[in-house]
Amino acid sequence: MTYDLVIRGGTVATASDVVRCDVGIRGGRVAALGADLPRGEKEIDATGRYVLPGGVDSHCHIEQPGSVGGQNADTFVTGTTSAACGGTTTVICFSPQKRGGSVKEAAENYHRIASKSVIDYSFHIVINDPSEQVLEELPKLIEDGHRSLKIFMTYDSNFVDDSQVLKILEVARRNQALVCVHAENHEAIKWMTARLLDAGLTHPRYHSWSKPPVVEREAVHRVIALAEMVDQPIQIFHVTCGEAAEEIRRAQARGLKVFGETCAQYFVLTEDDMDRPGFEGAKYICSPSPRHAREHDALWRYVASGTLDIVTSDHAPYMYEGPTGKKVRGDNAPFNIIPNGVPGVETRLPIVFSEGVVGGRIDLSTFVAITSANPAKLFGLYPKKGTIAVGADADIAIWDPARKVTIRNDDLHSAMDYTPFEGMEVTGWPVMTISRGEVLWNNGEVTAEPGRGEFLARDPYDYIKPRGIFPTPFDPITGEVGSSR
Amino acid sequence: MTYDLVIRGGTVATASDVVRCDVGIRGGRVAALGADLPRGEKEIDATGRYVLPGGVDSHCHIEQPGSVGGQNADTFVTGTTSAACGGTTTVICFSPQKRGGSVKEAAENYHRIASKSVIDYSFHIVINDPSEQVLEELPKLIEDGHRSLKIFMTYDSNFVDDSQVLKILEVARRNQALVCVHAENHEAIKWMTARLLDAGLTHPRYHSWSKPPVVEREAVHRVIALAEMVDQPIQIFHVTCGEAAEEIRRAQARGLKVFGETCAQYFVLTEDDMDRPGFEGAKYICSPSPRHAREHDALWRYVASGTLDIVTSDHAPYMYEGPTGKKVRGDNAPFNIIPNGVPGVETRLPIVFSEGVVGGRIDLSTFVAITSANPAKLFGLYPKKGTIAVGADADIAIWDPARKVTIRNDDLHSAMDYTPFEGMEVTGWPVMTISRGEVLWNNGEVTAEPGRGEFLARDPYDYIKPRGIFPTPFDPITGEVGSSR
Amino acid sequence: MTYDLVIRGGTVATASDVVRCDVGIRGGRVAALGADLPRGEKEIDATGRYVLPGGVDSHCHIEQPGSVGGQNADTFVTGTTSAACGGTTTVICFSPQKRGGSVKEAAENYHRIASKSVIDYSFHIVINDPSEQVLEELPKLIEDGHRSLKIFMTYDSNFVDDSQVLKILEVARRNQALVCVHAENHEAIKWMTARLLDAGLTHPRYHSWSKPPVVEREAVHRVIALAEMVDQPIQIFHVTCGEAAEEIRRAQARGLKVFGETCAQYFVLTEDDMDRPGFEGAKYICSPSPRHAREHDALWRYVASGTLDIVTSDHAPYMYEGPTGKKVRGDNAPFNIIPNGVPGVETRLPIVFSEGVVGGRIDLSTFVAITSANPAKLFGLYPKKGTIAVGADADIAIWDPARKVTIRNDDLHSAMDYTPFEGMEVTGWPVMTISRGEVLWNNGEVTAEPGRGEFLARDPYDYIKPRGIFPTPFDPITGEVGSSR
Amino acid sequence: MTYDLVIRGGTVATASDVVRCDVGIRGGRVAALGADLPRGEKEIDATGRYVLPGGVDSHCHIEQPGSVGGQNADTFVTGTTSAACGGTTTVICFSPQKRGGSVKEAAENYHRIASKSVIDYSFHIVINDPSEQVLEELPKLIEDGHRSLKIFMTYDSNFVDDSQVLKILEVARRNQALVCVHAENHEAIKWMTARLLDAGLTHPRYHSWSKPPVVEREAVHRVIALAEMVDQPIQIFHVTCGEAAEEIRRAQARGLKVFGETCAQYFVLTEDDMDRPGFEGAKYICSPSPRHAREHDALWRYVASGTLDIVTSDHAPYMYEGPTGKKVRGDNAPFNIIPNGVPGVETRLPIVFSEGVVGGRIDLSTFVAITSANPAKLFGLYPKKGTIAVGADADIAIWDPARKVTIRNDDLHSAMDYTPFEGMEVTGWPVMTISRGEVLWNNGEVTAEPGRGEFLARDPYDYIKPRGIFPTPFDPITGEVGSSR
Repeated sequence: MTYDLVIRGGTVATASDVVRCDVGIRGGRVAALGADLPRGEKEIDATGRYVLPGGVDSHCHIEQPGSVGGQNADTFVTGTTSAACGGTTTVICFSPQKRGGSVKEAAENYHRIASKSVIDYSFHIVINDPSEQVLEELPKLIEDGHRSLKIFMTYDSNFVDDSQVLKILEVARRNQALVCVHAENHEAIKWMTARLLDAGLTHPRYHSWSKPPVVEREAVHRVIALAEMVDQPIQIFHVTCGEAAEEIRRAQARGLKVFGETCAQYFVLTEDDMDRPGFEGAKYICSPSPRHAREHDALWRYVASGTLDIVTSDHAPYMYEGPTGKKVRGDNAPFNIIPNGVPGVETRLPIVFSEGVVGGRIDLSTFVAITSANPAKLFGLYPKKGTIAVGADADIAIWDPARKVTIRNDDLHSAMDYTPFEGMEVTGWPVMTISRGEVLWNNGEVTAEPGRGEFLARDPYDYIKPRGIFPTPFDPITGEVGSSR
Repeated sequence: MTYDLVIRGGTVATASDVVRCDVGIRGGRVAALGADLPRGEKEIDATGRYVLPGGVDSHCHIEQPGSVGGQNADTFVTGTTSAACGGTTTVICFSPQKRGGSVKEAAENYHRIASKSVIDYSFHIVINDPSEQVLEELPKLIEDGHRSLKIFMTYDSNFVDDSQVLKILEVARRNQALVCVHAENHEAIKWMTARLLDAGLTHPRYHSWSKPPVVEREAVHRVIALAEMVDQPIQIFHVTCGEAAEEIRRAQARGLKVFGETCAQYFVLTEDDMDRPGFEGAKYICSPSPRHAREHDALWRYVASGTLDIVTSDHAPYMYEGPTGKKVRGDNAPFNIIPNGVPGVETRLPIVFSEGVVGGRIDLSTFVAITSANPAKLFGLYPKKGTIAVGADADIAIWDPARKVTIRNDDLHSAMDYTPFEGMEVTGWPVMTISRGEVLWNNGEVTAEPGRGEFLARDPYDYIKPRGIFPTPFDPITGEVGSSR
Repeated sequence: MTYDLVIRGGTVATASDVVRCDVGIRGGRVAALGADLPRGEKEIDATGRYVLPGGVDSHCHIEQPGSVGGQNADTFVTGTTSAACGGTTTVICFSPQKRGGSVKEAAENYHRIASKSVIDYSFHIVINDPSEQVLEELPKLIEDGHRSLKIFMTYDSNFVDDSQVLKILEVARRNQALVCVHAENHEAIKWMTARLLDAGLTHPRYHSWSKPPVVEREAVHRVIALAEMVDQPIQIFHVTCGEAAEEIRRAQARGLKVFGETCAQYFVLTEDDMDRPGFEGAKYICSPSPRHAREHDALWRYVASGTLDIVTSDHAPYMYEGPTGKKVRGDNAPFNIIPNGVPGVETRLPIVFSEGVVGGRIDLSTFVAITSANPAKLFGLYPKKGTIAVGADADIAIWDPARKVTIRNDDLHSAMDYTPFEGMEVTGWPVMTISRGEVLWNNGEVTAEPGRGEFLARDPYDYIKPRGIFPTPFDPITGEVGSSR
Repeated sequence: MTYDLVIRGGTVATASDVVRCDVGIRGGRVAALGADLPRGEKEIDATGRYVLPGGVDSHCHIEQPGSVGGQNADTFVTGTTSAACGGTTTVICFSPQKRGGSVKEAAENYHRIASKSVIDYSFHIVINDPSEQVLEELPKLIEDGHRSLKIFMTYDSNFVDDSQVLKILEVARRNQALVCVHAENHEAIKWMTARLLDAGLTHPRYHSWSKPPVVEREAVHRVIALAEMVDQPIQIFHVTCGEAAEEIRRAQARGLKVFGETCAQYFVLTEDDMDRPGFEGAKYICSPSPRHAREHDALWRYVASGTLDIVTSDHAPYMYEGPTGKKVRGDNAPFNIIPNGVPGVETRLPIVFSEGVVGGRIDLSTFVAITSANPAKLFGLYPKKGTIAVGADADIAIWDPARKVTIRNDDLHSAMDYTPFEGMEVTGWPVMTISRGEVLWNNGEVTAEPGRGEFLARDPYDYIKPRGIFPTPFDPITGEVGSSR
C-alpha cells in the first residue's frame, strides 16, 4: 500500500468539497485521500496551496485551419504544453471536416496530429457538411468514442442549414452523441457585414457591429427548437450575453436538455477592445464578438444560477503577424476576412479564478465545477477526469491562490505572438500541473513530454440520452406513438 | 344638406365608442352622425340593430393557386359576395408570384382578375423569390399602393430563406411597405413530415403532428430577430398558440414594431377536428394547424391584452370534392400533400362576435377594432375604411345581435362545398351590408354587383415607418452611424 | 334641427378616430358630427385646431387635507378652473375619511365643498379605516353613485393593512365598486425612513431613497394577490417604474382585472429634481417618488402596450410657502414630514401631448384614450364623458397643436405658488375648453362660473363586475362551490 | 495509521462525485478514502451498497408545541431515532418562543430537552415576537452558534408583520445569521378561512382551499422585497408550487441571496389526499397545503435548475388519535383548528431517492446535494457535516439502492400512530446509519443511544454575509452612502 506520489498538506477541492488532506497517487491514479497518508516515493509539499482537479478545457482549437482563413499557430505540442502550464490537463479539440470530405479520414488524420499531445485529449467531430458519406461514417466514429459533434450555424465554409442541423441531431440521437453548436445567424451576419462594407466601415471595431447579440439570441433559440423536435441534448457554445443565456434558461425551465457554455474572455474583453488604433483591434476578434461591459455581470449571474455551467477558453490561436494569422489578408483587411479567434488555453483558469473566486462571484467548488468537473461530466470523461477522487486519474493542478501575476505573452507557452490579456493582473496561478501522476509543469519549468497524452474515447452516458418527451405523441426517431406530451 | 341614405335609430359602434345615433350618407361616404338627422332619400330602420363598420378582412385568398396544390374555389365574384354576406366590405388578397416570375406581371394579372370584385379590395404582394428582377420591380409596385409584402417561411413552392427575408425586409424599409409573414420553420416541418410518413402515419390528423407549436414559435422568433436587424415593421400572420404570441409580446415589450394576427378558426377548431374518420379531417387542414383547445383561451388573453390586435379569416377555399380541392391527389392522400386552407370570409365576423362579444371575452368596440379598425389602420386604409366617422366610406354592416344561427354551408355564398363550421351555433349575424352607401346584402338577398368593387391603393403611413433604433449605432439601410442603441 | 353651437372645421379625435368634421351641439350635448353642418346659433372656427374630448382627470386632490399634513391650496373654484384652463372637463376627487369617522358624513361634507366646482366631478371614497360603521355606510354610498373606493397601503394616517384591504375588496365586490390603490409598503418605508434619519440624512433628496421601486413593486404584487382571492377589479394608482408595471402586466396575462395608472409627472420628473439646493427639492416631493430617468421610457413602453392605460395628474397642491404647504413644519423639515404632492391638473394634458404625441411615442387617438376615454370608461362615466360622439356631453377641448409654451406658474390658474414644471417647454396647448356646450376657457380668458359643475353619480358597469374565476372552486363572496379553477 | 472502522467496497457519493472506494474512519471522523485501505479495527462490507453522507434535515419539529395547537408526539429520543433509522444524522430543530417570552430562556430550555438526542443537532431560533427583550437577547444567542432565525408570516400565535420582519432581518444582518421564512399571507388565509366556515365548509379538504398558491406566492414575493431592502440573506421554507418557486428564481436572477427549500411530501402528496372520508384527511394537513399533482413536476424542474436546492421533511408529528394530535379539538373539528403537520423525518430520504434518483429526475450526487450537502453548507455545518471527505464527521448512511419497501408506520421509529405515506412503495432504503463513526441503525436494529448527540454551534460563514448591494446608494444598516445601485 505504498504511493508513488503523495501531495501533502494542501487544500483539496472538488466541485462540492474543500478540505485539507493529502492525496496519495499510485499508477497514475488517485489511490487515497487521507488526513495523514504514509510517505510516498515522491512527495510534494502543498502547504498553503490549493490542490485542484486539472482543468478540462472542452473547447480548444489546435493545429486546425480557421473558419475565416489562417491556421492555428499552436501545434499539439505547443498548444497542450500551454494548457498544462495553465493548469489544464485535458483538452477536447476539433477534428475538422472539409466540405465534401470524409469525417472518418479527417479524424484519422487528426488522431495522427494529436498524438504529439502532452496531455490527454478527446475530439469533437466537426461536421460542415452532413453528406450521405458523412452520415454513414458517423455511427462508427461515435462508437469509437467521439461522442460529441460540433456544428456551426455560421461561417461560409462551415455553416449547416436547418435541414442539415436536423440530420445531425438525428444521427446524434440514434448513436448517442452530444451536439455542440456555434449559434449565430449566418445570413443576418452576412447581410449586416455587406451593409457595413457598403458604408465603408471595415475597421476591426465593426466586427462586433456585424454580429450583435440579436444574431446570437436568434440562433440559440432556433437550434433549441430543432433539438426540441428531435429530443436531442445539445450544448450551446460560447454564450456571450444575457439575452442568449436567457433563451437557454427558458429551455431548461421547459425541462429540455440544453446546456450552456461561456468562455473566459467574455468576462473581461469588451467590444471596445476591437476599437483600438490601426489593426490592433484584430487581436480581439473572435466569434461571437466580445460585448458591452454590462454583459460581464449578466454572464456571471447566469453562471451563478447554473444556466451556464461550463467555462472554456475557445482557444483559437491565430498569430498577429505572419502569413497564417490575423494579417493573412494584409494588415488593412476588412473585419470580415480577419481570422476569428483568440488564444486562451493557458490563461483561462487564472482569469476565471481571479475574476470569479478572488472577485467574490463564485466559491472555489463552483470554480472547479465550471472549469473541470462539469465539462468532464457533460462530455463523458468523468470520473476519470474532473475530480480528485479515489480511482480518478491523478490530473491535478496545484495553485498558489495568492500569487499576483501580470499576464505577459512572453511568459506564456503557446506559439502565439500575442495574448489579448496582455497586462491584465490576476491573483492566483497554477504552480504545478500533474497528469496521471506525472509532473508536467513545475513553477516555471516545463517537464511535459510530447506524445505522452492519450486519446480519451468516451462510452455512452446519461447526459446524451433523450428525455422521451416530444412536442406531439410521436417519437420521430423510433417512430413510436405514445401518450407523452 | 340632404342625405342619400339615413340609417336610423341603431346602435353605432366604432373601435372606441358605442352610441345610439343616425348615420347620414351622401356620395358613398358618411356625411353625418346625428341624434335625429333629417330624412334621407332612402332610409333604413336600424332600431334594435348594431350599426358597425364593415369588416376589413386583411387575409383572404381568392382565385389563387394553393401553396400545396389545388386552386381557390372562390372567384372574386363568389369570394367577395361571400364576404359581403358576412358583413365584410374590404378584403386584402394576395397577388401571387410564381418562382422565377415577375411580381409586376403577376400583379397586373391579378388586378384584371380582381376587377370583378363586389367590394373594395387591396393586395398583398406575395414574394416567393426575391430575384433581381423582383427587387427591381417592387419599388414601383409599392409606390402604386401595394404597401404590404407577404412572405412564407415554409412551403416548398413559397418559402424564402433568411437571406431572402432580409432582402425583402430591406426593400420594404427602403420603399415603405409592411411585411407580413407566414412563420413556420420549413425544414423542421419537412423533417417531421418525413418521419411521420416513414412511420406510415399519413392520415389528416398527422398534419398537426408535423407542425407542432414549436415550429411556429421558432419562425416567429427568427423573423422578429431579422426585422430587428433591419428596423422594419412586420406583421405575424395567423398566430395559433400562446407560445408564438408570447414571442410577439416580448418583441413589443422591447419596443419593436411587430404586430400579431390570429384567425377566427383558431378560436374554435382544434387538432382533434382533423382526427375524423376517413378523409373528413382534410376539411380542417390549414396552416398553421388548429391546436389543442387550451390555446383558445390563451389566444383570447393575448387579444385582450393587445398583443394580437387583428383577427382575420385566412379564407383559403379548397373544395372537398373535385379536382382542384382537398382531394386533388386523391381521397387517400397523405396529410402533407392535401391543399392547405379553410374557407371563412363569411363566417369570420359571426364567429368572433359570438365567441368574443356574446361570450363575454371582449366588448363591442374591441370587436370592431380587431375585425375592422385595426386592419384598416395597420394596412393604411384608414380612415377611409375601418370606422363609421364623417368622411369615411359608408361601409357598414347592420347586425342583429340576438339572431341565433346554425352555420350551414348551404346558407353561405362562397363557391365552396363545405364549411369547417358546419353545425356550429352562433349568436349575432349581419343582416345588411352596405359598401360606399350601396346595399350589397339585405337579410337574405344578395344585391351586390360584380365589378363594383374598387382597388384601394395605399399611400405611406406611420405604421410602416422604421423606429430609428438599431442593435448597434449603425443604420444598415441609410449607412449612417449614430448614437442610438 | 338647429344647433346651439357648431364647432367648425377642426380635426376631431376620439380614442379610435381622427377625422375632419364639424361638431353640432344642442342642449349641452353633441347632437351631430357632420361634414358640413348647418349654421349654429353660435359658431366656433376650429380650422387648424384639434377638437378633442375634454380631459378626464380621475386623480385630483382638491380642498383636502394632506396625508403628511398640509392642506390643498386649491379650492374647488381654483382647482377646477385650473383644470378647465388645461383642457380638462371632468375630475374625480377624493372624499376624505378621518380615522374613526363616518364616510357618509365625509361625503356629505365633500359634496357641499365640491358644489362650487366649475366642471363636472365625481368622487372616490377614501377609506382609511374600514370600521363597522364605515362598512355599513358604504353600500348606500356606492349605490348613490360613488363607485370607486380609494385605499392607501402607506401613510401613518391612512394605511390599511391586509385584513382591512380584504374587507374593502369584499364590500366593493358585493356592491359593485372599483377599488383604487396607492400601493407602497408602509412598514418598509417607515423602516428605511428611520434608518435615513438615524444617519442624519434629512434633505428632500432622501425622500426617494426612503421609498425605492422595490416598495412599490411589493405592494402592487400584494394587492393584486389579495384582489385575486376576492375576484375584485382594482386599479393601481400612479405607477412610476417598470418593475411595478411588470407586476400589473403579469396579472393581466393571468386574465385578472387589474388596471394601471401613471401620472404626467412620472414621464418628466426624476429623483434628481429633489436634489436641489436648500429646500427647493421639496417642491418635487410626491408619492411614489419620481424615479431615475430610465423609467420614463419604461413607462411609455407599458403605456404603448396597454398595461398602463390611464394617465392622470395626481394633482396634490401644497404651497411652497405658507402655513399649509411644503413648509408646514419649517423650511428645514426632514423629508418624511413634508407634505407629499405636486400640482398638475392644468399641465397634465399639455405635458402628455407634448411628450407623447409630439414626441412620437403615441398617436393622437391614444392620447385621447389615456387622458379621457379610458378614465371615463374605467370609472363608469362613459359615454357621457370621454368622447365626442352623438349623445355625449359636449365636453370639448380645442387645441392648438403647434403652440409652443414655456410653462410658468404665473400663467396657470391654480392657487399654487409654484409648479414643478416651471420653465419646461411644451408643444400643443388647449386654447378653448367647453363643458356641456358652455365655453369655460377661451384663449386666455376664463369664463367659467363657480358652481356650474355637476356631480356625476355612476351606475354599475362592466368593468367592476367580477370574472367568476377563483383560486379554488370556491367563490368566497357568494359561498358557492363551482368547478372553475 | 490504523482505522477504527473501514467501510469497504461501497459506492461512495458526495454532492459532486460517485466513486468506488473504501472509507477509513478514525476518532469519529473520516480519516481516509482509498482504493484498498488497510484493515480497520472494525470492518463493514458495503459491496453493492451506496455509501452516502448522512442526511441533514434542516427542518424538523421535535418536542415542540404546535402552531395550531397540539404537541409533537416525538421526543428527542423518538424523533432522532426515527431520523437515524431513515439515514439522517443531523437535524436542525426549532427552539420555540412564546409571545412575550424570552428567546434566551426558550433556547436554554430547548437545549435541556434536546440533550437526549441520539444524533447531532442544531437550532433555528423561532421568533414570534421581536420584543425589545428578544432583540437584546439575540446577538448573544447568535454568537453562541444559533445562526438561523425562523419567522412565520402566518398563524395567529406566530406571525410577525412586516415591521417585525424588518426588525428581525436587521438583527440577523447585524449579527450574521440567516433568516428562514414560513411564507404565507396570514390575513388572506384568515379571510378565506372565515368565508369557508361561513359557507359551512369545514371538512379537512378545505384546508387547501383556505390557502391556495396565491397566498404563498404573495408572501414569498413580499419577504424577498423586505430582504432586498435590508440586504439580508433568507431561505424560503417549504415551497410547494411553481408560482412561488418562480418568485425565488426571479430574485436569484436579480442576484439576491434568496434560497429555496421544498419538502419530500410536496413531491408525492396532493390536495386530494385531504379529501378522504371522515376525518382521515386531517392526516395530510400541513402548511402550506399539498397542491395539485401538476406541481410535482414543477417542483422537480425548479430543483433540477437549482432554484430550490434543499429538500427537508418539515417533520411535524401530531398523532392522529389522542389528546395532543389531530383530534385535539375533536374528530369533527373544522380544518382551521386541526394541528398542522405531517411526520416524515424517517421517510424523507427514501421518498426523495425513489422519486428522484430511481425515477430518473436527478442523479445520485444531486440527491446528496439537496438532502445533505446543501443544507449543511447553507446552515454553516459544512464540512463537518454534509459530505464524506477527509476530516468530516463520519456521518454516513449505507443504502441498499435496490431494496423495495412498502412504507408502513409499523415499521417506522417515530412515536407517531400514522404516516401519510402508508402503503407507498419506494425503491432504495438506508440499511445502516453511522454517526461520528458509531453505528446507530443496522438493518432493522436500533443501536442508537439517547444523549449521544451533540449540539452543533455554528460560526459565521459566507452564505450569511450581505452582498453590499442596495436599492439606493444607502446601506441602511451601516448608514453609509456609497455609489452602488
